[in-house]
Amino acid sequence: MLDATAAGVYVIAVTPFRDDGRLDAASTDRMVDFYRRCGVTGMTILGIMGEALKLDAAEAIGFTRQVVKRADGLPVVVGVSSPGFASMRTLARSAMEAGAAGVMIAPPAAVRTDDQIVGYFAQAVEAIGSDVPFAIQDYPQASGVVMAPSVIRRIVEAHASCVMLKHEEWPGLEKITAVRGFIEAGSMRRVSILTGNGGTFLDFEMERGADGAMTGYAFPDMLVDLVRLQREGAREAAHDLFDAHLPLLRYEQQVGVGLAVRKHILKQRGAIGSDAQRNPASKLSPVARAEVAYLLARLAKHDMRAQGLA
Amino acid sequence: MLDATAAGVYVIAVTPFRDDGRLDAASTDRMVDFYRRCGVTGMTILGIMGEALKLDAAEAIGFTRQVVKRADGLPVVVGVSSPGFASMRTLARSAMEAGAAGVMIAPPAAVRTDDQIVGYFAQAVEAIGSDVPFAIQDYPQASGVVMAPSVIRRIVEAHASCVMLKHEEWPGLEKITAVRGFIEAGSMRRVSILTGNGGTFLDFEMERGADGAMTGYAFPDMLVDLVRLQREGAREAAHDLFDAHLPLLRYEQQVGVGLAVRKHILKQRGAIGSDAQRNPASKLSPVARAEVAYLLARLAKHDMRAQGLA
Amino acid sequence: MLDATAAGVYVIAVTPFRDDGRLDAASTDRMVDFYRRCGVTGMTILGIMGEALKLDAAEAIGFTRQVVKRADGLPVVVGVSSPGFASMRTLARSAMEAGAAGVMIAPPAAVRTDDQIVGYFAQAVEAIGSDVPFAIQDYPQASGVVMAPSVIRRIVEAHASCVMLKHEEWPGLEKITAVRGFIEAGSMRRVSILTGNGGTFLDFEMERGADGAMTGYAFPDMLVDLVRLQREGAREAAHDLFDAHLPLLRYEQQVGVGLAVRKHILKQRGAIGSDAQRNPASKLSPVARAEVAYLLARLAKHDMRAQGLA
Amino acid sequence: MLDATAAGVYVIAVTPFRDDGRLDAASTDRMVDFYRRCGVTGMTILGIMGEALKLDAAEAIGFTRQVVKRADGLPVVVGVSSPGFASMRTLARSAMEAGAAGVMIAPPAAVRTDDQIVGYFAQAVEAIGSDVPFAIQDYPQASGVVMAPSVIRRIVEAHASCVMLKHEEWPGLEKITAVRGFIEAGSMRRVSILTGNGGTFLDFEMERGADGAMTGYAFPDMLVDLVRLQREGAREAAHDLFDAHLPLLRYEQQVGVGLAVRKHILKQRGAIGSDAQRNPASKLSPVARAEVAYLLARLAKHDMRAQGLA
Repeated sequence: MLDATAAGVYVIAVTPFRDDGRLDAASTDRMVDFYRRCGVTGMTILGIMGEALKLDAAEAIGFTRQVVKRADGLPVVVGVSSPGFASMRTLARSAMEAGAAGVMIAPPAAVRTDDQIVGYFAQAVEAIGSDVPFAIQDYPQASGVVMAPSVIRRIVEAHASCVMLKHEEWPGLEKITAVRGFIEAGSMRRVSILTGNGGTFLDFEMERGADGAMTGYAFPDMLVDLVRLQREGAREAAHDLFDAHLPLLRYEQQVGVGLAVRKHILKQRGAIGSDAQRNPASKLSPVARAEVAYLLARLAKHDMRAQGLA
Repeated sequence: MLDATAAGVYVIAVTPFRDDGRLDAASTDRMVDFYRRCGVTGMTILGIMGEALKLDAAEAIGFTRQVVKRADGLPVVVGVSSPGFASMRTLARSAMEAGAAGVMIAPPAAVRTDDQIVGYFAQAVEAIGSDVPFAIQDYPQASGVVMAPSVIRRIVEAHASCVMLKHEEWPGLEKITAVRGFIEAGSMRRVSILTGNGGTFLDFEMERGADGAMTGYAFPDMLVDLVRLQREGAREAAHDLFDAHLPLLRYEQQVGVGLAVRKHILKQRGAIGSDAQRNPASKLSPVARAEVAYLLARLAKHDMRAQGLA
Repeated sequence: MLDATAAGVYVIAVTPFRDDGRLDAASTDRMVDFYRRCGVTGMTILGIMGEALKLDAAEAIGFTRQVVKRADGLPVVVGVSSPGFASMRTLARSAMEAGAAGVMIAPPAAVRTDDQIVGYFAQAVEAIGSDVPFAIQDYPQASGVVMAPSVIRRIVEAHASCVMLKHEEWPGLEKITAVRGFIEAGSMRRVSILTGNGGTFLDFEMERGADGAMTGYAFPDMLVDLVRLQREGAREAAHDLFDAHLPLLRYEQQVGVGLAVRKHILKQRGAIGSDAQRNPASKLSPVARAEVAYLLARLAKHDMRAQGLA
Repeated sequence: MLDATAAGVYVIAVTPFRDDGRLDAASTDRMVDFYRRCGVTGMTILGIMGEALKLDAAEAIGFTRQVVKRADGLPVVVGVSSPGFASMRTLARSAMEAGAAGVMIAPPAAVRTDDQIVGYFAQAVEAIGSDVPFAIQDYPQASGVVMAPSVIRRIVEAHASCVMLKHEEWPGLEKITAVRGFIEAGSMRRVSILTGNGGTFLDFEMERGADGAMTGYAFPDMLVDLVRLQREGAREAAHDLFDAHLPLLRYEQQVGVGLAVRKHILKQRGAIGSDAQRNPASKLSPVARAEVAYLLARLAKHDMRAQGLA
């Protein structure tokens, strides 16, 4: 079960489809194995980059069951954000029954004032049950909801089942500092802070007090190394590693087409059998594919240099 | 099957819940009977005011089956707007198998340019199948998507299965005139135009060329009379009737609390057993209940006067 | 100087233009005289419906000077909402020097959390000076900013120069009750509450505790009568009057084209010489003009009946 | 005068303030000299990052005059986006009289459909005069307006005075390819394409067909070098240079706080005397200052390595 000590890399998993659009069960197992080999601490499925909204209810539950089973003890967090609480409850309860470690919830755009945000999470907890550990997904660029640090504290204090902040406000370094400050000052219970936004600020997020990353960059192994280096205090090495990946990280972080980049690389790395997306699907133009190849080649050269091979 | 000749009143049905939040099967039948007695031509279920998003997938299909069965030939349109095409397809196909007459689709907010809107409906038709008659729901205040009349024409021309425009841009009188003008000029195939927005402009919408109303005012019988009077050319009588209801119509048209007003009156009229909503629920304060009672009393006095009884 | 006892009708004035787009000085005087004859308590200029954004800085100040001079003691509130504080300050200081009674400020859309809203008004007061009485314009449909009643209270408590709430959240009856409740409970200093939204809920807003209206309906004389009747406790008479105007009120309340309706009627009533708007301008189609004429004819018939003449 | 052949770096200039918030005339001259020394082709003032909205009308014109005079022949583009056409015209005409090379215009959020966007620019051209060369600012993340490539083409074809596309949709590489493709296919007149977004994709934007950059990174000298290297076909060198700056580029590209970073570095580099912003101002926390210092130190080390000094 997910708890407030969670740390490391919870990779945001893609959802593998076949070229004909059906869920790709074989690739799903392969992908879980791939992520495990990358050294991730856990996985998060059915997030935005997991094309959660493109599955119907039965598919979402089926996919969850398969991943949890294959993960074989590796904790799996399930995105259950939904326009309605009944759907959220159905998926959350099914996921927990299947063995998921917890769920993740983002508020809908209609929620605006501080009290409305706090009230929304109270209704969400009532819907899924207070026995289900959950992460607040704080992602204003996608949700349209801006949560002050004090609002996050109110939610954490109101619900013992809130164990994690998935932090991806952008820019957001000061928010990590503020929330971590609350915890250190004893004015807020500890929760795990994992960061998103494709990892584009992970270098400094770790230094600001994050416990790790929850993002889906196609090189989760780099994320794992970076988090480890930062924890070991190897700052220069961490930044060297990060900077080498930043050109690609940035390229993959593009809204829409970024998922095409990610699936394209994951396919190249053998993690999935097809880079197909369901509609509305983003596509890589030939020029974009060449750009990705160029970035990968530069990354490979860097790796060889780093290993003294060039 | 819904077709482009549809006219009259397709009432937007509420979804009856019990006080404990469960679907209220007994009230569902009662409600269908009530609407029939009001003289409606058809019903639209699982719209925004039908709390569609608050049902999970299984409930949505179960509710659809019950309504279609009880409607017993009265055409039922099912709202299938969804953040994803798989869910849209699942509900649309199940609804049609259950005997629904057609479906209604609104685009999501992310769709912005003219081409994106046209492309979205092409993907939606691909998802649900080109054999399913559908209505475009043009409701920018809720969807965030603004469709030029020329965009509506492109969708209609591209898809024979598009048979209806649910018009509820506000303000929107000129749009009805524009779309109706396309049809009369022969530059666009005929589709049915039914109007929403709680009916607050139905008096003039009929004069601009609408074929009727698709809205859920708690006095559907009035909507039926108004549409009939306008078709008969009884303009003064139509406006007299409309104006008598406008104070309440406006009161019921309030975002959020309007649904509480509607369910409150429908319960008073015996159409449903409880005015409960699922979360996030709007509530009527005691003051608001008194205001509704006052408006109903004034309406009753008007009716007596109109019948020469006062 | 505007203070917290303000009550009655502060009409939202239009800005008269000539057909060639220049400010119409002659009509400006005529308009002020017209509003005075209608019995208004005060005037608000350079609001949204005053096309404030269509004037450049020099025109805004010149127009303000002329209106204040012609108003000759009738209090004039000046809308000074601006994307920047320097422009806000320049206009506010110039307006007060010219003899304005106070200013009105709405926050920009970027302001989201409770603290951000409170902080914005603190910066605005710092910009215009704490000696300038101001009204909070609470108009989320236009501003995108949702203010909880508790946020309004924080602003009022922080700034003695805040003397008025221009209330136009929609729906908003419960908010009037909440804010008035704060005042009656002694948890908030009294401010004047005037309501907007074209007057479409003025009947009940007065009963909920509003002190009057700040809106620009083309029959300000009706608003004056309605406010007076409600204060005298003549509830039935107030609603009868209101209901007679509601069909037109609603028609004039349409976003965009509503201003064309208003200027068209004000021109007919002799208040202004031209109904011209600057770009982006809304226009009345011939059909719309006929609809307005029809509504005016129905209103005239009602007035005759009310006077026992028909 | 700005024309369609413009290329190179048009740096987005900051607006220097003194610590007391007044315009800093001495720093303004110093800044112009600094940018010239960096090798820029031109300057763009009163953009979003130039805090344009924080100046009142008189200040905007005064600042424009000073910059144009000091620029002494270096072309100056003036941002004239405004909520109203009268203000836009006043600033545009004054700027051109002062010797500006052209203006830049972004549409307001209310403009949505393809036709509305095209219509908006027609009204803007009517307002400023068809003799004033202008750039379309295509920046949906800030404006809320999404322009299809075909819409850009319609604007370009309709107005000979449209000479430039300031491209900063994000992601936007495919859009550059599409617009450049129109030009190459002869279906659209040539316009200059300069790119923004802080330069975070400038490496590939140049390869996609951009003519240069219009952005305000605190190392405009790097932008100048990068544009030159890409034009010379020195791809590897260009990417090496870009990648070395990307960690800082990304840090400076943060919404809000990014301007504090930029002014902080520009002050360190001696370009301006104070890093003050007017309200609403972003601030660098001590931790953030240390992060910037760390990134600058890493950049310095890279430069030394690149020059064979380490």
